[in-house]
Amino acid sequence: MKIINIQGQSGNSQILINESLENLTKYVPPRRPVIVTDHNVNRCYRSYFPGWDIIEIGTGEEIKTLKTVEGIYQQLVDLEIDRSCFIVGIGGGIVCDITGFAASTYMRGLPFGFVSSTLLSQVDASVGGKNGVNFHGYKNMVGVFNQPCFVICDTEMLKTLPRNELICGFAEVVKHAAIGNRELFTFLEQRYTDALNLDQPVMERLVYDSILVKSSIVEQDEREKGERRKLNFGHTLAHALEKTTDISHGEAVSIGMVFAANLSVLRHLLSKEEANRLRLLLKQLQLPTEIETNISKEKVKDAIRKDKKREGQGIHLALLKAIGEVIVEEIPLEELEALIDDMYMHW
Amino acid sequence: MKIINIQGQSGNSQILINESLENLTKYVPPRRPVIVTDHNVNRCYRSYFPGWDIIEIGTGEEIKTLKTVEGIYQQLVDLEIDRSCFIVGIGGGIVCDITGFAASTYMRGLPFGFVSSTLLSQVDASVGGKNGVNFHGYKNMVGVFNQPCFVICDTEMLKTLPRNELICGFAEVVKHAAIGNRELFTFLEQRYTDALNLDQPVMERLVYDSILVKSSIVEQDEREKGERRKLNFGHTLAHALEKTTDISHGEAVSIGMVFAANLSVLRHLLSKEEANRLRLLLKQLQLPTEIETNISKEKVKDAIRKDKKREGQGIHLALLKAIGEVIVEEIPLEELEALIDDMYMHW
Repeated sequence: MKIINIQGQSGNSQILINESLENLTKYVPPRRPVIVTDHNVNRCYRSYFPGWDIIEIGTGEEIKTLKTVEGIYQQLVDLEIDRSCFIVGIGGGIVCDITGFAASTYMRGLPFGFVSSTLLSQVDASVGGKNGVNFHGYKNMVGVFNQPCFVICDTEMLKTLPRNELICGFAEVVKHAAIGNRELFTFLEQRYTDALNLDQPVMERLVYDSILVKSSIVEQDEREKGERRKLNFGHTLAHALEKTTDISHGEAVSIGMVFAANLSVLRHLLSKEEANRLRLLLKQLQLPTEIETNISKEKVKDAIRKDKKREGQGIHLALLKAIGEVIVEEIPLEELEALIDDMYMHW
Repeated sequence: MKIINIQGQSGNSQILINESLENLTKYVPPRRPVIVTDHNVNRCYRSYFPGWDIIEIGTGEEIKTLKTVEGIYQQLVDLEIDRSCFIVGIGGGIVCDITGFAASTYMRGLPFGFVSSTLLSQVDASVGGKNGVNFHGYKNMVGVFNQPCFVICDTEMLKTLPRNELICGFAEVVKHAAIGNRELFTFLEQRYTDALNLDQPVMERLVYDSILVKSSIVEQDEREKGERRKLNFGHTLAHALEKTTDISHGEAVSIGMVFAANLSVLRHLLSKEEANRLRLLLKQLQLPTEIETNISKEKVKDAIRKDKKREGQGIHLALLKAIGEVIVEEIPLEELEALIDDMYMHW
């Protein structure tokens, strides 16, 4: 097991990599615990926490709404949960995002922790203290910044993940390598087959190094004003694609990273060779690198215009100077739209 | 004008007492502003902010719900409000509570400020960084702790307040005097007629001294673990009464303070004379000091059992040792219930 301590404005968080779900009780403070989880996780793992109160929610991005949060509030009231209690979210990014928001706002905030059961949430959602839900189709439009007390990342749990969910998690691992750890990127190029086969030592390194990249950025900028924008590498186009189609987050980020790398090449920041390394690694990890032409170009552009990170006529984008080195530049909306046109025509 | 600076965990807040609404623009940072206010305030004061975007909400405790917050989110989306903008809540406690919560959770938090238009919000809701809404009848069940950048307390605006709302505000002024400023209490005993007539220098002192009592307590304990419980003087019974009847907050607090003072006498903490001074001052300020017998005793007890500040079989109550001196003691639920029985029989 490896441990990363995160010091956030809203409190400290301990990330436990390759700790087992079985040891959850070690980390829950001496308070009455209540678990929030989804149907799938509950079915696989409920025997690990006998006698605990469990609030079960549905699965899928479409349940990431205020309505689900209200359902949790109601059950917390019914269970007479008060400020002396502790909330544990067990599941992927959706469960953790919803649980973190409900815990942060019920009675103006109860302490909470997570067990991350997907690769995507282990390397991404679990770190950073962001939580929240979608609002009328706008991703993460409602939420707060608030750190969980702990996050258990049990890579054994990844074995019960559907294949496509696992692969989507690798998109964020590649992102972290691309923006902040060149050696990790090279390691991935060498060991991608072992990674796909969930080789434990390989997975521990991937998760640990990924979280280190993210946590070092988050510590410098918890509230997403400057430094944290680096983590949005690939995410501007990704969010627009997710808003427009039913593509998964990981697939969208994969395409978005290729888009941002191409923009980096066009702006003479990145060499073509490095951009190609990124594209090849994503392909080796069975991730898409091109936009499907049946996706409406105008809807994608419209979604980018409505991006919550837009400020005036520009949008801050994370671009690569090299594998492992990222900078943030303000890109005029026009330039982005021209590149989207180009992508549809030439790629 | 007098200024009080509050340093909270979630940021700093500047309270401006007797600053005029006219000078609002001085305090809004160079960002696009959007106002959230209610119908009554908008009608009286909209000429003060020509050309600003205004989101209007209803009035009354029954609009303090997540549904109203969702309506605000929707209008913020429609107005394309992003993180570069600034939100101003103008109104009483309900407007400020709702606006603060919407601003704190929209896009994970935009900066915001308040103009407090009622005496109750000037001396209470405006200070402390609490915000939120009710949930299925439970008061303030959903919310966060987050400080506004500024609060303008314009006592001129009190002249357009309905008489009963003004009087209810005095309940919180008396509370602050009773728990933390004996001189203020004596001043109120001497000048209550001027206060009721909204004499400006008298009001400035009442608001300023009240906020000082509250802010010094809040600074020590923003998240309501120990010290802050002192501010709940009179509020445990008050919340139960509000949940059970349509009594106003101020009236409920007035009755609740007499209740807590009587409990203090029973526990040999407070002299009968001091308890009587409190009761008399409340009467002079035209506030009720006795529970109406048509209110269901069992419902009041049930509401106290469901209080969000209950921990196990006890509830922390603020009690008086003297006018101007408060302590917090954990009172068994049984003892509270016995006193409620007694109150119905003998008062």
